[in-house]
Amino acid sequence: MHTLIIGAAGMIGRKLTARLAADGAIGSRGITRLTLADVVETPTPANAGFAVDTVTGDLSSAGVAASLVSARPDVIFDLASIVSGDAEANMEKGYRINLDGFRLLIDSIRAEGTKTPYCPRLVFTSSIAVFGTPFPAKISDEFLLAPLTSYGTQKAICELLLADYSRRGLLDGIGIRLPTICIRPGKPNLAASGCFSNILREPLVGQEAVLPVADDVRHWFASPRAAVGFLTHAASIDSAAVGSRRNLNLPGISATIGEEIAALRRFAGERAVALIRREPNETVARIIAGWPQDFDAKRALALGFRADASFDDIVRAHIEDELGGRIGG
Amino acid sequence: MHTLIIGAAGMIGRKLTARLAADGAIGSRGITRLTLADVVETPTPANAGFAVDTVTGDLSSAGVAASLVSARPDVIFDLASIVSGDAEANMEKGYRINLDGFRLLIDSIRAEGTKTPYCPRLVFTSSIAVFGTPFPAKISDEFLLAPLTSYGTQKAICELLLADYSRRGLLDGIGIRLPTICIRPGKPNLAASGCFSNILREPLVGQEAVLPVADDVRHWFASPRAAVGFLTHAASIDSAAVGSRRNLNLPGISATIGEEIAALRRFAGERAVALIRREPNETVARIIAGWPQDFDAKRALALGFRADASFDDIVRAHIEDELGGRIGG
Repeated sequence: MHTLIIGAAGMIGRKLTARLAADGAIGSRGITRLTLADVVETPTPANAGFAVDTVTGDLSSAGVAASLVSARPDVIFDLASIVSGDAEANMEKGYRINLDGFRLLIDSIRAEGTKTPYCPRLVFTSSIAVFGTPFPAKISDEFLLAPLTSYGTQKAICELLLADYSRRGLLDGIGIRLPTICIRPGKPNLAASGCFSNILREPLVGQEAVLPVADDVRHWFASPRAAVGFLTHAASIDSAAVGSRRNLNLPGISATIGEEIAALRRFAGERAVALIRREPNETVARIIAGWPQDFDAKRALALGFRADASFDDIVRAHIEDELGGRIGG
Repeated sequence: MHTLIIGAAGMIGRKLTARLAADGAIGSRGITRLTLADVVETPTPANAGFAVDTVTGDLSSAGVAASLVSARPDVIFDLASIVSGDAEANMEKGYRINLDGFRLLIDSIRAEGTKTPYCPRLVFTSSIAVFGTPFPAKISDEFLLAPLTSYGTQKAICELLLADYSRRGLLDGIGIRLPTICIRPGKPNLAASGCFSNILREPLVGQEAVLPVADDVRHWFASPRAAVGFLTHAASIDSAAVGSRRNLNLPGISATIGEEIAALRRFAGERAVALIRREPNETVARIIAGWPQDFDAKRALALGFRADASFDDIVRAHIEDELGGRIGG
């Protein structure tokens, strides 16, 4: 089976690549070839038991999507998009990359299918940003799409296209609305969502972290490990069981900042918690107040998607996968 | 105030034009100029107390949208789209006209606003086709967008764009999800939705009509007169009261085929009802089974949108507006 990852150089793309290299298969189907595409050079895994090739190119540029699709991959992971803040600050760029790039991809798949039948599984990473306030206490599988950012709008539009093209049999799409990834590895960043990871990642290695919001702020999380599991499950699931509603709220962990800190205390003690410096920021607080806090992800659970079991598991996954099991500074 | 109607030659466009000519105003604002645009030649009203000009052109062709917008109309009604059956049979045409045409329009408005500030009211006619089965007994204002046709997909995408461009202050959009128009004037047509009008319109003038579905089939209706009222209300409403969710389920009348026939009997007697010939058609029945039957249109009602008061009012509007008050054949 030939697998294509678009946006392979990003954090999730690299983790997915490592997982596919380790497993050699998705579900019961062995991987024979893996193509890694991104706008930047993508590192290739050293230990893969299958052919790996890389493509550097922008999906929204002429010919790139058609060229990727001409190799007729059986499974396509589309992880490519610019992030929320960038899409908000640069409107045309956001629509070009996050919407038009996706249309070029699905229209290339459609065009490929007019030659000889071709209907690949397309796993699209959407986002809980397709929802906007006001929210119910738990967001159900039937809650309206009402994004309050251009990024969320672009994701919602791609979801609608994915469902229509799937309904027409032009591709076999599954859209997954990823929770906020936590603990996000790497450096602290200035994105509003960064604080949820920063206050754990930095203290776990003895570094100070800034907390701009109150302890009772609640949000919706999945570990990078759970996110990779969502992707491979979405690639191997029976889409007949999914039906016409191809876009899914995924399960996650709903937790407050206070619950995050309590988990940190259990793993790394009071000394780690003391590294969190409170610096209230009203702008960040206002942005986060517009975000979903909890979901009742019935359909995805029934379809076999599995979240982390607890917030402690989210912290544990980070310690195992990023810190080699060691805590401290 | 300069008003532009795109798709002015269609049934609703002509009725809206006649209403604007009769009123000379939308809400409290007088009309000084009316531009009527369509892909075909548009008739102009004889009795308008303001300048009327017509434009023949396809919104999805280069330059047409920019040219229409360059006159900086204060209110734009966008009624232009190809119908559901056409969009389903001709996928590329549907996406080109119903989606790309709309994007050209809103991007032209945005470009115009970069010269000097410009933020017109844009009234977009969406459809209950943005929803797909399974439905609750009454569809709420918070029900998910899950269209099961390309037409519904295109309308849902335009809604999302309308909301995002409005949020950014690039235009001042209101999207209205029109119920099925009944009684639709004109000839019987083969659209699945045609039967709801056919079984009234034809018997009211002594002609036979074919009924392909059962008496207990329920659907959601508004008269052409109510639809025109929705449009003018959407053009004059305070959008601050609408908030960020710019797309509205409109109020309507939920009625079964049996209730339609009972209304016909009250106006035109048993002789008219006898003109309905039952010819069950499973294909039509299956299509209609996928359509919404009832809504709880709280928000639109709170915002002052008013439906017909009863199904009898729908029949009465037709008799008054189309038949000069006379029933019979």
